[in-house]
Amino acid sequence: MKIHSDYMTVHTKQKREFINITPNVKFAMEKSGIRDGIVLVSALHANSAVFVNDEEPGLLEDIDAWLEKLAPQRNDYKHSQKFESNAGAHLQNLLVHHQVLVSISDAKLELGPWQQVIYAELDGQRPKRILIKVMGE
Amino acid sequence: MKIHSDYMTVHTKQKREFINITPNVKFAMEKSGIRDGIVLVSALHANSAVFVNDEEPGLLEDIDAWLEKLAPQRNDYKHSQKFESNAGAHLQNLLVHHQVLVSISDAKLELGPWQQVIYAELDGQRPKRILIKVMGE
Amino acid sequence: MKIHSDYMTVHTKQKREFINITPNVKFAMEKSGIRDGIVLVSALHANSAVFVNDEEPGLLEDIDAWLEKLAPQRNDYKHSQKFESNAGAHLQNLLVHHQVLVSISDAKLELGPWQQVIYAELDGQRPKRILIKVMGE
Repeated sequence: MKIHSDYMTVHTKQKREFINITPNVKFAMEKSGIRDGIVLVSALHANSAVFVNDEEPGLLEDIDAWLEKLAPQRNDYKHSQKFESNAGAHLQNLLVHHQVLVSISDAKLELGPWQQVIYAELDGQRPKRILIKVMGE
Repeated sequence: MKIHSDYMTVHTKQKREFINITPNVKFAMEKSGIRDGIVLVSALHANSAVFVNDEEPGLLEDIDAWLEKLAPQRNDYKHSQKFESNAGAHLQNLLVHHQVLVSISDAKLELGPWQQVIYAELDGQRPKRILIKVMGE
Repeated sequence: MKIHSDYMTVHTKQKREFINITPNVKFAMEKSGIRDGIVLVSALHANSAVFVNDEEPGLLEDIDAWLEKLAPQRNDYKHSQKFESNAGAHLQNLLVHHQVLVSISDAKLELGPWQQVIYAELDGQRPKRILIKVMGE
């Protein structure tokens, strides 16, 4: 079994941003030389998310509004920082998760129609790391 | 390491349906000859879900109602198709996810009491593909 | 590829409890001798959850309240047991999921700042099993 680990760092200008990282996943796969296996894409933070879905801009706006509706950012959570609580970002991370697996077959990522690997920055404006780990043959 | 990929296509009569695909996962495992490892079960669509839970019919009705409550299908999302938006199905996919891993030990799926692999069709009446990828020894 | 499976049993005093099981995951990794790979941590029950997040006590209270808000425990679900329905616990399991993957690199768990592996007992006071499966080289 071959194993290849890549890391990428994201530093968003906005507090919240959605970034299509499928090209980064593809690049890590190509570097690994692995033609059949899986890639684990995992945010190394408790207030960022990684998911697979459509990257259509209208849908990303819907997702953003939905995250805020189901897990609003407020300042009355018990988890607090000095000036503001980021508990909302933690709950949003739990809601859509921080990791996905993508299958590799014939040296291609097996993503269905409209499926893209999306990084959701939920508490940004600082460096955040993402692990891209390729395993297989 | 052995790797074996299977694909199944589902074409539901209803727009929404829950299907217990544990037998398909078991069959792919048996075909692979792998006795120790993992199976990745992943919907190749952004509007279908795969999860592990109890398949008791009352609970599936509860899950269906709960998905509709937390991520309702409406026509006022920003993500729209020509006639209706399926953004609700995308949000429901994010809520319960599109993939699970099942462990294999002694040539058996390691599912706990009541755990079944369930495919949730959220926007059906057309062919949808599911990947079942077995990896191990 | 080396594969090592560990199992732990949790029997909580309370109906609901959050337990940091990162030390158990680390111990299984050390026993396996695997220095590069992944660990699958998966609850073998449909009414328990495993997630990665911060274990700060205030945040765990926020998570508990949030789970109850989005997937309340009530007795009017269709899924019922003899005396009370535990459908709420099933829905909470769907919401935050029953499994995570943790990467291993240089014989260390690759968890980011504040990331811990947390077992959420949602319907306890009885023995529950968790699988910790280490795979790699």
